[in-house]
Amino acid sequence: MNTKNELTEVAKKIAPFIHKTPVLSSSAINKMLGLSVHFKCENFQKMGAFKMRGAANAVLSLSKSEKSKGVVTHSSGNFAQAVALASKMNRIKATIVMPSSAPSIKKEAVIGYGARVIECAPTLQAREETAERVILETGATMLHPSNQIEVIMGNATAGMELFDQIGEPDAIFTPVGGGGLLAGTALAKKGFAGGVRVFGGEPSGADDAHQSLKAGFIIPVENPKTIADGLRTSLGDVNFPIIKELVEDIFLVEESEIVDAMRLVWERMKIIIEPSSAVPLAALIKNKSQFAGQTVGVIVSGGNVSLNALPFS
Amino acid sequence: MNTKNELTEVAKKIAPFIHKTPVLSSSAINKMLGLSVHFKCENFQKMGAFKMRGAANAVLSLSKSEKSKGVVTHSSGNFAQAVALASKMNRIKATIVMPSSAPSIKKEAVIGYGARVIECAPTLQAREETAERVILETGATMLHPSNQIEVIMGNATAGMELFDQIGEPDAIFTPVGGGGLLAGTALAKKGFAGGVRVFGGEPSGADDAHQSLKAGFIIPVENPKTIADGLRTSLGDVNFPIIKELVEDIFLVEESEIVDAMRLVWERMKIIIEPSSAVPLAALIKNKSQFAGQTVGVIVSGGNVSLNALPFS
Repeated sequence: MNTKNELTEVAKKIAPFIHKTPVLSSSAINKMLGLSVHFKCENFQKMGAFKMRGAANAVLSLSKSEKSKGVVTHSSGNFAQAVALASKMNRIKATIVMPSSAPSIKKEAVIGYGARVIECAPTLQAREETAERVILETGATMLHPSNQIEVIMGNATAGMELFDQIGEPDAIFTPVGGGGLLAGTALAKKGFAGGVRVFGGEPSGADDAHQSLKAGFIIPVENPKTIADGLRTSLGDVNFPIIKELVEDIFLVEESEIVDAMRLVWERMKIIIEPSSAVPLAALIKNKSQFAGQTVGVIVSGGNVSLNALPFS
Repeated sequence: MNTKNELTEVAKKIAPFIHKTPVLSSSAINKMLGLSVHFKCENFQKMGAFKMRGAANAVLSLSKSEKSKGVVTHSSGNFAQAVALASKMNRIKATIVMPSSAPSIKKEAVIGYGARVIECAPTLQAREETAERVILETGATMLHPSNQIEVIMGNATAGMELFDQIGEPDAIFTPVGGGGLLAGTALAKKGFAGGVRVFGGEPSGADDAHQSLKAGFIIPVENPKTIADGLRTSLGDVNFPIIKELVEDIFLVEESEIVDAMRLVWERMKIIIEPSSAVPLAALIKNKSQFAGQTVGVIVSGGNVSLNALPFS
């Protein structure tokens, strides 16, 4: 495929359904790190996360007949809201399978966007079986939060916009959970900014991508433990080859480093970022000497946090 | 005086020392209120609050001989940091009198900006006496956080920028504590946007400005009780006449309404605003029917909150 042309098409297609988000920087943080960080603020994206980009592209890529039958996904996080909103904007029926353990505020948000919510037991098996049942009953198309090429290409538009806004940085950092944002950003590099080095930041408590990249094959995460709730999922077989080809390294960070980076952004930049978004910054801080004096892009993946359960004390 | 020309001079003078802050809006909040709100984000200002504008103008307005002797102020809040930073930028000695009860993080911030901190007992009398002593010993010039025309005119530049950025709104709301921001915004209206209606938002637990405007003379606040820590001070005799002439009304809000408005901005806009900044939005929400369909500017005064003591539960 011609990455540049395809991504240009994707960006054009989803433009009416997403925000072009701002790029912010902080002289205090730059001074502290001895380099120049540009934060691509997807926390200001519609529904509060980059997931809107991938969901919009996935929904818009459906055939007319697929659109008429609707979509289904299982998620308790940002992708659920993204699919609900992207579907609503395109008058497509959306069914979201959510574990019964998901916070009611998340269910309400999805329902608020007009989607149908089906609850299931809080296991991956139950989620998959419930989604299967919906597909059998309605003919709906399954959308995957990260391991689907349309989603990955939609995600790529965040990096594309960043390169357009600040020019080509020396390096770009994203969080890595399922791998959809990191793979998308890698495609953006391939298509538009060949000289950029691409890095992932990953919590030590959910280090499957780091391990997989080292091993050369996918090692699924077992029993992930991290405050970065968006990064507890495993790398997928669609995005892993892209990451293997184009990503230079995946840095691990500890929980306290994630909270410190999150606090730094809240206090210095006065913007709300979710724990997952603090992971690439924490990785950059930890490895700052490697990037001394350079220009580094950081994709701030989202800003959806529960204000009743913050990690500051 | 010719307000327009004088304020244009002030804006030019302080421009190198401040940020031109962005104006943000939220379609969710607009839909909720049935009007169009434009938030002037002084939480993104240098040191995190609009106070930088007034402090910069006050420092820059000193004579050469005054500059050589330095400045002094007593404050435990944003003005202390603003004077410290504005002085540092202009290589002027600054002494900040702070009550011994002020959080150590605030003292450290002021010291970090290179100012000298003198602690005193946590009473207004002790603060004033200590500042007097500094003036006697050093010849320093006293700067007042809100009741000084140079400070008020510096503050006016926030409103001026907003009018420049979005055109003339139907109304503009600011918080009111000492009255420096409200009076400044009223001057901005006088000089640049005659048709704008100017309103203040004030906590019921510190309602001296509301009472004073009704009575026609200053009624000082006694025993103020509000989460909006920046608004516990009384209106001054320099800004009161300006407010009396140009401000249409001061709306009162309850503590729960302040917290609700603050939460709304944090959750919907993903930006950090301090409780004082939520007061004008709370006032607008409470009186939204009066402004149905209109365009309203809200000056977000600052974003300095202690993440360890948030009002959400």
